[in-house]
Amino acid sequence: MLREVPWRFIKSLSGKKEREKTGMTVVEGPPSVMMALETGVDIEYLVMSRSFFSSPSGAEVSRLLERGPAPRQVFTVPDELFERMSETKSPQGVLCVVGVPFRFKETVPKSPWDKQLEVVGVDIQDPGNVGTLVRTASAVGASSVVFLGSGADPFSPKCIRASAGTVFRVAVRSPRRDVSPTGYLLKRRSEGMEICKTVPRRGVSPWEADLTKSLCLVFGNEAKGLDDEVLSVPGLEISIPMPGGTESLNVAVASGMILYEALRQRMGHS
Amino acid sequence: MLREVPWRFIKSLSGKKEREKTGMTVVEGPPSVMMALETGVDIEYLVMSRSFFSSPSGAEVSRLLERGPAPRQVFTVPDELFERMSETKSPQGVLCVVGVPFRFKETVPKSPWDKQLEVVGVDIQDPGNVGTLVRTASAVGASSVVFLGSGADPFSPKCIRASAGTVFRVAVRSPRRDVSPTGYLLKRRSEGMEICKTVPRRGVSPWEADLTKSLCLVFGNEAKGLDDEVLSVPGLEISIPMPGGTESLNVAVASGMILYEALRQRMGHS
Repeated sequence: MLREVPWRFIKSLSGKKEREKTGMTVVEGPPSVMMALETGVDIEYLVMSRSFFSSPSGAEVSRLLERGPAPRQVFTVPDELFERMSETKSPQGVLCVVGVPFRFKETVPKSPWDKQLEVVGVDIQDPGNVGTLVRTASAVGASSVVFLGSGADPFSPKCIRASAGTVFRVAVRSPRRDVSPTGYLLKRRSEGMEICKTVPRRGVSPWEADLTKSLCLVFGNEAKGLDDEVLSVPGLEISIPMPGGTESLNVAVASGMILYEALRQRMGHS
Repeated sequence: MLREVPWRFIKSLSGKKEREKTGMTVVEGPPSVMMALETGVDIEYLVMSRSFFSSPSGAEVSRLLERGPAPRQVFTVPDELFERMSETKSPQGVLCVVGVPFRFKETVPKSPWDKQLEVVGVDIQDPGNVGTLVRTASAVGASSVVFLGSGADPFSPKCIRASAGTVFRVAVRSPRRDVSPTGYLLKRRSEGMEICKTVPRRGVSPWEADLTKSLCLVFGNEAKGLDDEVLSVPGLEISIPMPGGTESLNVAVASGMILYEALRQRMGHS
């Protein structure tokens, strides 16, 4: 057992190289840490600042700690020291370190749908968008969320925060760089999945597409959308009509709209 | 005419007090500045860095400048000076200063819907969420977007950036602080608008609500939602079903989903 909190190590995990080398990441902030505790993911260290520990949220975390499987180590540290290891501008006083891929005591909740609903993000750059996509996918009961290409790492502390900890509630995958988006989608297609690609215009409206089949919903880069190679994969092209004349939507919003449509159709109101 | 760029003044407009005192704000980055030029909003100053000026986007801005109504002054400045007045971490080399409320040479594009679709945000804190809400509202052709309570200022440089300049494409209003959200909504109700309040659970599904009537769609604070006083205003309560078991959605995504449903119904597919 360590006697002192490994704060330099924790701080270093904001870098991707360090996360890859150690197979660890940081989960920061009350919503995400509580979600980690509730889902029973294997936790290496849990760190609280003194003032968080004596706050109502601190009491809640302590209750979860008593109930659930124990982190290997729990530290309570002076607020200044917590701030030193925190990645955020206004640290909220609680973080934990977990191994990637996550190891759960029990399995992740199963998707409520018979037919698979897989969300695929290609080259999504902004950690906020990546995390928000995971959060939406989890809410609508997606069977998995897969990130391909050169986007943000969904297991980075920033993406985990933006997901509000839902990264522990839905199967998230980020295959190695040598898996090409096109290769991946062709493989999924050969397994019987319909490939639905989101394009800014000229696709069918979401309500004209049958989103009740087993499908991969594919979303592209914030500025450039999906590239020609990905668009060459046979499948349906979907566009959200924009009668207001604006040119584009935020990718997290656009994916939310299409996932909502899948939800609506699957709940039996098509 | 000024002979030197008023960079201290421009920098000061990141503060709300300064914006209120002077009635001006800053629009930064190519998408937003181009949108400002295209919509013909009155521009006080336009500032480009030297390297932006000689880039392809700079050429595009110059073309727009030749075509459209002229800003009162155009400056091209050394990159270091541009960085000093920029509000962003990675300045993109172009900004302009406009008066608030915006004055347009021609009127803003009209909403495509006969029945009003007004988006109301109450106490929305995050500038990214405020701007994204404007962007989505503009895309679906909302008739207006109104921000009430103690949230982020939709005319701040951050919100304008997050809106990708669509703040110039839809009527955005932010009444003074002494207009209470409840008072505003009761007034709108007395004018014949249906009030639809978004709640995290126990409301009707969006597809069960009739969103083709003249309506105010009301969204609340990121963490707390709508408060009891606003919820006491008579009207419909809507919730997005979350069969995945996650507790909440990002407010920009949730509002996107409900605006999508309004769009779907209004385009004749209910």
